[in-house]
Amino acid sequence: MPADVHSSYRLDDLAQRFGLSLAGEAGRSIRGVGTLAQAGPDQLAFLANARYAAQLASTRAAAVVLDASMAAGCPVPALIAGDPYLAFARIARLFEQRPAATPGIHPSAVVEPGAAIDASASIGPLCFVAASARIGPGAVIGPQCVVGDDCDVGAQSRLVARVTLVMRVRIGARVLVHPGAVLGGDGFGLAWGGQQWEKVPQLGGVRIGDDCEIGANTTIDRGALEDTVIEEDVRLDNQIQVAHNVRIGAHTAMAGCAAVAGSASIGRHCLIGGGAGVLGHLQVCDRVTITAMSLVTHSIREPGEYSSGTPLQENRQWRRNAVRSKQLDDIARRLAALEKGMPR
Amino acid sequence: MPADVHSSYRLDDLAQRFGLSLAGEAGRSIRGVGTLAQAGPDQLAFLANARYAAQLASTRAAAVVLDASMAAGCPVPALIAGDPYLAFARIARLFEQRPAATPGIHPSAVVEPGAAIDASASIGPLCFVAASARIGPGAVIGPQCVVGDDCDVGAQSRLVARVTLVMRVRIGARVLVHPGAVLGGDGFGLAWGGQQWEKVPQLGGVRIGDDCEIGANTTIDRGALEDTVIEEDVRLDNQIQVAHNVRIGAHTAMAGCAAVAGSASIGRHCLIGGGAGVLGHLQVCDRVTITAMSLVTHSIREPGEYSSGTPLQENRQWRRNAVRSKQLDDIARRLAALEKGMPR
Amino acid sequence: MPADVHSSYRLDDLAQRFGLSLAGEAGRSIRGVGTLAQAGPDQLAFLANARYAAQLASTRAAAVVLDASMAAGCPVPALIAGDPYLAFARIARLFEQRPAATPGIHPSAVVEPGAAIDASASIGPLCFVAASARIGPGAVIGPQCVVGDDCDVGAQSRLVARVTLVMRVRIGARVLVHPGAVLGGDGFGLAWGGQQWEKVPQLGGVRIGDDCEIGANTTIDRGALEDTVIEEDVRLDNQIQVAHNVRIGAHTAMAGCAAVAGSASIGRHCLIGGGAGVLGHLQVCDRVTITAMSLVTHSIREPGEYSSGTPLQENRQWRRNAVRSKQLDDIARRLAALEKGMPR
Repeated sequence: MPADVHSSYRLDDLAQRFGLSLAGEAGRSIRGVGTLAQAGPDQLAFLANARYAAQLASTRAAAVVLDASMAAGCPVPALIAGDPYLAFARIARLFEQRPAATPGIHPSAVVEPGAAIDASASIGPLCFVAASARIGPGAVIGPQCVVGDDCDVGAQSRLVARVTLVMRVRIGARVLVHPGAVLGGDGFGLAWGGQQWEKVPQLGGVRIGDDCEIGANTTIDRGALEDTVIEEDVRLDNQIQVAHNVRIGAHTAMAGCAAVAGSASIGRHCLIGGGAGVLGHLQVCDRVTITAMSLVTHSIREPGEYSSGTPLQENRQWRRNAVRSKQLDDIARRLAALEKGMPR
Repeated sequence: MPADVHSSYRLDDLAQRFGLSLAGEAGRSIRGVGTLAQAGPDQLAFLANARYAAQLASTRAAAVVLDASMAAGCPVPALIAGDPYLAFARIARLFEQRPAATPGIHPSAVVEPGAAIDASASIGPLCFVAASARIGPGAVIGPQCVVGDDCDVGAQSRLVARVTLVMRVRIGARVLVHPGAVLGGDGFGLAWGGQQWEKVPQLGGVRIGDDCEIGANTTIDRGALEDTVIEEDVRLDNQIQVAHNVRIGAHTAMAGCAAVAGSASIGRHCLIGGGAGVLGHLQVCDRVTITAMSLVTHSIREPGEYSSGTPLQENRQWRRNAVRSKQLDDIARRLAALEKGMPR
Repeated sequence: MPADVHSSYRLDDLAQRFGLSLAGEAGRSIRGVGTLAQAGPDQLAFLANARYAAQLASTRAAAVVLDASMAAGCPVPALIAGDPYLAFARIARLFEQRPAATPGIHPSAVVEPGAAIDASASIGPLCFVAASARIGPGAVIGPQCVVGDDCDVGAQSRLVARVTLVMRVRIGARVLVHPGAVLGGDGFGLAWGGQQWEKVPQLGGVRIGDDCEIGANTTIDRGALEDTVIEEDVRLDNQIQVAHNVRIGAHTAMAGCAAVAGSASIGRHCLIGGGAGVLGHLQVCDRVTITAMSLVTHSIREPGEYSSGTPLQENRQWRRNAVRSKQLDDIARRLAALEKGMPR
């Protein structure tokens, strides 16, 4: 917890600390942050999305973080930023209360003899840590986590609560994993044995790079032969499914409920929309954006934005068009025939 | 547990208790409930879905709950209801065994000093309750739950098992939360810092109204500045994802695997189909139905039913049509040209 | 754990043990398995997917499992198999380290008096087992599982960790359940009561056949009146949702994030792709394949492959075509008019 949480800051001090220009009264005291619509007279607000520009005129905030083009319309002092959202995020951290964690092992935790736990790490109530696990300096393992066989948690990483690391999971430094996430479970490997399915052993692990964030109830399976790899600074939202032997490149962010099938590879700096899917064994290059609920059915070699799906329609209209979508090939052929002067 | 569970009821008593008309023998004894196809001669069945009407003639049930239009075809005594499904649900509750919960704190639970736990509440085995948590009268916290910092559980609410309330979660009265649900985790807020992602602090909470139900492995993130709000009597199925700052109006029901992106607002009395998605910052008005796996890509201002997607087809047919769907704009232009008398 | 894990095997011994033909040097020692690209000179690789055929020429593996048609191009000794993937899976099991489980109840587990736990079963750390639960011979209940009221775990089955069996769940023999799975939660049954939703009691259970596998964070609700049934040898990947009263036939496999709505019935030997959905009350016959993210909107009576959805396109192209997809019915009508010689 920063020592100055819940203190008050002068606007000009904030401008200086974060390298922003100040327009208006310098001495206002800021004691918190809020939205344009709700912030009170000692709170800082921000405007980063044009959707909310109409709220600027009536804001009661002490000041607003915005970009230069909006400054003229701001009825209160303004902190002018090249990237208002980023500037606001940094300022807001001053007002964040982070739960403190005491180094040491809670007496209710079950730690098998042999586990290598740094003296500065914190193992919370009702955790289970296997004999071959390693917990690094300053790492925080919240309540009810499982750290299984041959799993590492790197320095300053935090498992919030009820996280399961099943087997052979290597987590880098400063990684944040939210409750319910399951890392290192068996990949879904099956071979048909003639009479029933036979399980393909999953001999690999999972590697999570530094500075990653893994959302609540997200699942990342371990590899069949080699590791499933999440490179540094990857940000995964809640309920994402990452199958065995997937690789996700550095700085890629994926929104909730997205899923990547086995052995697919996603590049760096990609943005994968909510509920989107990537089929197995495909390759997606760097700097690709996939819109929400699209399905990636072929490898992508060029940066850009990609989509599938149909637009939302009123249901009766949708039904009429949906029937026709089953006739599309026929429609195209009949059109071509007409063009050739061959109407029926 | 109602005192009379597993007792026997006379048909005429049931008719009177639930305000139904009885056609046929009044004295039959009902000792349980079942389906039309499987109910035995001491069980009550129901018919509420026309799909199953053909099973009526051969039912061996003691009696059937149905609406007046079906009564003539009923070979056994009938309880006639305006809404047979509702009437059946109410009767079936007589035969439900609810797990009892003993007030008090199980000795294996870890409760930090300071937690405010009502004497009539039950804290189950292996739970963790933080110092600043509050548990109301008659609330039941099942095995292995986490009730984190600044979380409230209202009167008579029940966390079935292994529920995680991360931080600043206020749960109203008579709320039911199923296993694996994670409420109050960090919203997915990121700002690009030039070299890597920077985390946007999530300073809000989650508010759950009275009489809500939250399904297994559902996730509801806490807000960035203000709260994520689920109004009263909202019913969420399993594996639903609710992002930060979403608002869901009273009496709305969402089926499994639906997802709502950040700052979207859904009205009252909506029905959201399984796997459907709502994009961020959109507004959906009251009394909207979204069909399964549709994506809401724009705000909806009129009540009604909305859909996206294409119908299921045999794969070879689908492939032919799918290729053409990429040529649709071209097809439309060529058609317009033909109409103007300009064939190629 | 097989006694011979991490031993070395001669190629000709492997050929004999698994009924394969050997081409090339018989005496090579195999100490592990790997991919074509990464296997070292004491590891066995395999080629089962034509996608990876180009890697064969440069492999450094000790030997490769492949089918006869590829043997000529193999630069190292080959084990020739009718089904190389299956043969490789079987060989790979020789090199799998399985976590050992000690029979007995871990002292940190909470087992209510009355629970019937076989002496050869293992109950891991921090588990909760209800009084009316039954755990069969050789079953392994990993850390932090909940085995609730009236739940059975069959012989040799394994709950890996943090699995929740809520109520009336009967698990057969040799079933494997991964972390975070929730079985036997309330089905999503609601009746509109005029002023608010009323809960329909869920009086059934869940039955899981022998040899099933249930993925991480998958949810299977218990039935309303009868049981939700998963027949033998069904394989469910992660984050699958199975609603109440669903039946899934033997040997069916479902990929990650698929979902089946209430009372739907899926046949035997089906393959359901990732993220696919099946609407409620539908019937899908045996030997049906559903491609990823398709929605099954009607019952399927013929074996075969079925799909819905549109292909991925570059976003600008997609937008142009998506607009037209809302005009499809109009386009079809105008085309028909033209064909009749009635251009505008």
